[in-house]
Amino acid sequence: MLLKDKIIKMLKDVKEASLKLGNISTKDKDKAILAMASALLKNTKYILSENAKDVALSNKTGLSKALVDRLTLTEKRIKEMADSLKQVASLKDPVGRILRQWKRPNGLIIKKVSVPIGVIGIIYESRPNVTSDCAGLCLKSGNACVLRGGSESINSNLAIHKVVTKCLGKLGIPESAVAMINVTDRLAVEILLKQTNLIDVVIPRGGEGLIRYVAENSLIPVIKHYKGVCHLYVDKDADLEMALDIMLNAKVQRPGVCNAIEKMLVHKDIARNFLPQAARVLDDKGVELRGCSETLKILRGIKEAKELDWYEEYLDLILTIKVVKGVDGAISHINKYGSRHSDAIVTKNKLTAERFLKEVDSACVYHNASTRFTDGYQFGMGAEIGISTDKIHARGPMALEELCTYKYIVLGSGQTRS
Amino acid sequence: MLLKDKIIKMLKDVKEASLKLGNISTKDKDKAILAMASALLKNTKYILSENAKDVALSNKTGLSKALVDRLTLTEKRIKEMADSLKQVASLKDPVGRILRQWKRPNGLIIKKVSVPIGVIGIIYESRPNVTSDCAGLCLKSGNACVLRGGSESINSNLAIHKVVTKCLGKLGIPESAVAMINVTDRLAVEILLKQTNLIDVVIPRGGEGLIRYVAENSLIPVIKHYKGVCHLYVDKDADLEMALDIMLNAKVQRPGVCNAIEKMLVHKDIARNFLPQAARVLDDKGVELRGCSETLKILRGIKEAKELDWYEEYLDLILTIKVVKGVDGAISHINKYGSRHSDAIVTKNKLTAERFLKEVDSACVYHNASTRFTDGYQFGMGAEIGISTDKIHARGPMALEELCTYKYIVLGSGQTRS
Repeated sequence: MLLKDKIIKMLKDVKEASLKLGNISTKDKDKAILAMASALLKNTKYILSENAKDVALSNKTGLSKALVDRLTLTEKRIKEMADSLKQVASLKDPVGRILRQWKRPNGLIIKKVSVPIGVIGIIYESRPNVTSDCAGLCLKSGNACVLRGGSESINSNLAIHKVVTKCLGKLGIPESAVAMINVTDRLAVEILLKQTNLIDVVIPRGGEGLIRYVAENSLIPVIKHYKGVCHLYVDKDADLEMALDIMLNAKVQRPGVCNAIEKMLVHKDIARNFLPQAARVLDDKGVELRGCSETLKILRGIKEAKELDWYEEYLDLILTIKVVKGVDGAISHINKYGSRHSDAIVTKNKLTAERFLKEVDSACVYHNASTRFTDGYQFGMGAEIGISTDKIHARGPMALEELCTYKYIVLGSGQTRS
Repeated sequence: MLLKDKIIKMLKDVKEASLKLGNISTKDKDKAILAMASALLKNTKYILSENAKDVALSNKTGLSKALVDRLTLTEKRIKEMADSLKQVASLKDPVGRILRQWKRPNGLIIKKVSVPIGVIGIIYESRPNVTSDCAGLCLKSGNACVLRGGSESINSNLAIHKVVTKCLGKLGIPESAVAMINVTDRLAVEILLKQTNLIDVVIPRGGEGLIRYVAENSLIPVIKHYKGVCHLYVDKDADLEMALDIMLNAKVQRPGVCNAIEKMLVHKDIARNFLPQAARVLDDKGVELRGCSETLKILRGIKEAKELDWYEEYLDLILTIKVVKGVDGAISHINKYGSRHSDAIVTKNKLTAERFLKEVDSACVYHNASTRFTDGYQFGMGAEIGISTDKIHARGPMALEELCTYKYIVLGSGQTRS
C-alpha cells in the first residue's frame, strides 16, 4: 500500500474513534489515564531499553548534546511522565460545560456547550514525554490524536505509545483514539498536513524550524507554539531590588525555556544606577551581556547588539539590554521585536503599569512578577499542551479548556423563521 | 513602487492603526460608526452612481443574473446598510471584559481579559454591503481591517470605503484602521495572504471557490465560512405536522442561504406516510426532489440521487431525500456528508433528540426548530461577520465577541519562580 493510502486509512480510524470519544464517561477516561500511568511505571525497563537505542544512534549521528539530553529518558523522567498523567486524571473534565444559556423571545432555548475539537495532530521533536503527555491531555478532553514524533526518538515514542494504547481497549475506548505515525519519512508529515477532512487542528511542538515548516505546509488550522522573545522593562519608578530579583529569576532560573527573558529594557533615568548592579549579579551567574550603544557607554567592554539580536530567542545564558526613553519606547520596542509571548514591567507607578499591560500586545503581560510563570501549570489551569503565541482560539498556556471547542444546542417547539 | 511594496507599506499603517484602536473609547467608536451610517445615507446618490458602473460592466461581461442581483445597490439596500451600522453602534463593546479572574497561592492575581484580535483581513465577493458591515464590526471590536472585495464590485466598494473612512479622522481614529486594497489584480490577494507579521486572521466571505483558494494559499490563520450542507432528520416519533412546517421553512423561506436545508433524512417507519405529504407541499413551492433508492419506491418518478448529491450545497429549490433506519443512520450520514453547519431533528422522543444533539458534529444542532435561525442575528448576538464552519476560535455565528481574543494580565508584588 502507498504511504498516503496507509496514512489516510489510519486517519479514518482515528476520526471514527473521535466520534465515539464524546460518549465515554469522565470516570472511564480517568480510569484509562491512570492505567496509562501505571503501565508506564510497570514497563520502565522496556521503555528505557528502547530509549537507549535512540540515544546510541543519536550519539553516533552527532546530535547536539542538548538534544541528546532532551531525548534521554531515566527512571526519574518516566516517573514524572506517570505523575503528569495522574495530574491530568485529577483535573476537571472540560467537556460538556454549559458556557452560556439563554432564551429568545420566540421561545428558543440556546445552549453554548463545550465539546471536544475532534482529531488533533501533534507534530513534535526530541522529548519522548510529549507522547504520553499529549495522549493524556487529548483523551481527557475527548479528542482523538495522531502523534508524529521526531525520527531521533522513534523507538522511544513507539514504545511509550504501545504501552499507553494497551490500556484503552480494556475500558471500551478504541485504540485508534491515540494513533502514531510509525514511519520517519518526512513525506508522512506532508501527507498528514493535507488531510483537512480527517484532522481538525495541528499543534506543532519543537524548534522554530519545525513550527515554521508545519505552518507553511498545513492546509489544516495550526495553533503555533512559537518562540519566546520575552522582555523585562525596568521603569524609572521601579523598586530596583525587586527588579534585580525578577531579572535574575526570569533569565537564569531555566534559560532554555520559552518564557525566560531574552531582552531587558531599562529606563534612561535609572540606567547609570541600575545597569552596573545588574551586570554584577548576571556576571556571577555566567550570563553574557550584549547592549545598545547607550548601554555600552555604561557597561564598557560588553558586545554591541546587532539588529538581529533583538529578534533572537537565545535559549541560553545571554541577555541583550537596551536603554529606552520611557514606557512608550518600551512598548513600541516589544510590539516590534517581541514574539507576543510574555513580557513584564517592574514599576511602582500604577499608571505606567496600566499603559504597559494594556498596550503590549502579548499573550501574558506581568506587573512586578517574573515571566517564568507562563508555563508549568503556574496559572493553575493544569498541564499544558503548549504555550500558544497565536491570537486565535488559544493564547498563552493551552490546557484542557483550550483543547475544546463549543457547539450551539437549540431547543424548540416547532419554531420557524418568518 | 512594486505592488508588493505598496501593499506592505499600507499594511504597516494598518497595523500601526490597530495598536491605537485599543485606546479609543466605546463612545468614540460608536460615534464614528453612527457617523458612517449617516454618511452612507447622505452619499446615496454618489454610491448608486458608482454602483451603476459595476452593474453595467457586469451585464456586459455576462455575469450570472444572481450575481448581478447581489451586486446591485438600491436606495433601500443602502438604507439597510446604514441601519446595520446603527445596530452595531447600539451593541455592547466586546473589548475589556474580564472573562475570569483568580488569585494564586503565591499572591499573583491573574485576569483573563478580552482584547481585539488586531488586524483582520476580509476577502469577499459581490455584495458591496460587506464593505460597510465589516468596517463597522471591526471598528466596534477594536480591530483594524484590510478589505479586498471582488473585481466585479470595485467601484461600489471604493465609493463606500471612501464615504465611511472620511468619518474616522474627525474622531481621532486613524483612517488606516479601515483599509482597502484598490487594485483588482489577484496577485494582491496572494501577497496579502503571506503577510503573517501584519495580519492576524483572514476571513473569506463568498463562494466555495474563493474560500478554498484563500484557505489553500494563506500563511495567516483563516476562519472559514464555508458551505452549508444542512440536514433535517424526521424521526419516527416526530409530530408530522411540525416536521412539514419546519421542512418547508428550512427549505423554501430563503433557499439561497447557507442555513437552508439541502437534505432530508426520514425514518423508515414513517416514510410511507410522511413522504407523500412532504412531496405535495414541496411540489407546491416548486421544489425539485431527488431521492435514495428507498425514497424512489415511495415517490415514483423523482430523480435518483447520485453520491455527489449528498455533498452538494444547491442554494436552490432542490431537496435530496434519504430513508434511514433510525437516528444512528441519520447521525452517521450527517457526520459523513454534512458541512458541520446546522442540522435539525424533529422528534417527540427526548432520548432520541439527546443522542442527535450530542453526536451530530455541527456548529448548531436543533431540536424541533428550523435550521434557518443560524444567521441574521437570530441568536441575539447582534450582527455577524459570518457563520464559521471551522472548529477553532469561532463556531457558528461569528459576531463581536468572536472578533476578540484575550490576554492574561498578571499582577504581582515581586513574585519569582522557585
